[in-house]
Amino acid sequence: MKIGIVNASSRFDPARGEAIEAFMAQRFPDRSVSVVLHPSLYSKHGHFGGDDASRARAFIEFANDPRLDAIWFARGGYGSCRIAEAVVPRLNDVARKKRYLGYSDAGSMMALMYKAGFTGLAHGPMASDAVRDPAAAERALAWLTRGEALEWEPSLAADPRPAVAFNLTILDQLVGTALEPDLSGHVVMIEEVSEALYRVDRMMFHLTGQASIRRIAGLRLGRVSDVTPNDPEFGLTAEEIVRYWCDRSGIAYLGTADIGHDRMNKVVPFGPRG
Amino acid sequence: MKIGIVNASSRFDPARGEAIEAFMAQRFPDRSVSVVLHPSLYSKHGHFGGDDASRARAFIEFANDPRLDAIWFARGGYGSCRIAEAVVPRLNDVARKKRYLGYSDAGSMMALMYKAGFTGLAHGPMASDAVRDPAAAERALAWLTRGEALEWEPSLAADPRPAVAFNLTILDQLVGTALEPDLSGHVVMIEEVSEALYRVDRMMFHLTGQASIRRIAGLRLGRVSDVTPNDPEFGLTAEEIVRYWCDRSGIAYLGTADIGHDRMNKVVPFGPRG
Repeated sequence: MKIGIVNASSRFDPARGEAIEAFMAQRFPDRSVSVVLHPSLYSKHGHFGGDDASRARAFIEFANDPRLDAIWFARGGYGSCRIAEAVVPRLNDVARKKRYLGYSDAGSMMALMYKAGFTGLAHGPMASDAVRDPAAAERALAWLTRGEALEWEPSLAADPRPAVAFNLTILDQLVGTALEPDLSGHVVMIEEVSEALYRVDRMMFHLTGQASIRRIAGLRLGRVSDVTPNDPEFGLTAEEIVRYWCDRSGIAYLGTADIGHDRMNKVVPFGPRG
Repeated sequence: MKIGIVNASSRFDPARGEAIEAFMAQRFPDRSVSVVLHPSLYSKHGHFGGDDASRARAFIEFANDPRLDAIWFARGGYGSCRIAEAVVPRLNDVARKKRYLGYSDAGSMMALMYKAGFTGLAHGPMASDAVRDPAAAERALAWLTRGEALEWEPSLAADPRPAVAFNLTILDQLVGTALEPDLSGHVVMIEEVSEALYRVDRMMFHLTGQASIRRIAGLRLGRVSDVTPNDPEFGLTAEEIVRYWCDRSGIAYLGTADIGHDRMNKVVPFGPRG
């Protein structure tokens, strides 16, 4: 079982990549499961982990490669929205059979892949998280190697409706674009990090104001962490903000979700679950 | 000539309001032009200058009042998207005959007013700017009292097409919502303040990815100021970012615009010019 690691977003630190290889060598001394780092993983181009063309090419190469069984996003940051439209139409039937795992900026890529009918996508720990927390690594590998439900976001067990999960900013910034999948009837889980509450409020205004988003089954709110200070105090908590905009727009607020930019980030497979 | 000052957004500092009154008393000792501050101008409600209901009521009262000749937004910040849908349907024929002036967060309100057919809207210095810069005050008053073209954004003189101007974040966060006016065939000017370049890039992805925005006549870029540091350097300037997304989406990039969050912010009347 070989897992390809690719970077669609910001620059990736070689020390992090080496730590992943070391972790995997220790965890699977027989190399029954191993990771393969794309040669361009540490490329740099301004903000990005290589220019758009090289990040796109790397993703296509690894996704389409029959010697790799699954694809793990290296990290988030920013940049996958720039390449998703160049990548997804070039993915082949090999790519369609694989499982993929990521969150944060990777959501832009996974949104368009979901729209294109990919069935192996999940929101969960990235390679860069795995080296910081063994439990996150096990959870990620359980998905990538076996599609295992043990560490899925817990509300999924009681709710049979199709689900997706996104960083709020990422979802907010892809609605109305070519990347937006049809989320009608879906439970949509959102999480956020490092945003001021007035921005969370504004994003919820925008998101819940979309006709497309008003057709979802409902919203669940994951953790909103490292909130940037609001001066004066905003006056509502993140959950109160989300409830307000759900009420106002007629979207069902379904409660919290066990996802976030943290080590507890549980796995949310995209779409119907078998 | 009486100009009503209302606040649709964040808390407004009483010292700023008193400075506006003092400026106007000195500038117009005969009170031929004067300002009227709404009684709730200094209200506080968490982040906001009063709760949504009181800010909405204040705007409706002043806009609909036949004793006031024009309406001047006190300041920006955040909050007018929360009340625009409650305000605009309640504005009467008196309100429709007035001129309005503001920018930044006021853009959310003006977007819906423009959609509703208001013809007296302009992007330009707010009351809070006027007390910091006499030239900005004169420019604002020239619009509010006479609709005067002298201090309009200079490209308007050579381009007869209808125009609008918005803060990029504000426009980005209202596309697809009930607030979005039909900007087909319009020259759209944007400006930004206090955002990192990766965010400007992401907003341009989102904005230029909208089918509605692809129908505009073209984009002009105002000043992008107080840019939040990007680590590492983003690799493109703000203008290069805007050109990139215009090229990619088939939107004409028309050059710069003399607007921004600063004292040079020129006036851009919304829509066709007579």
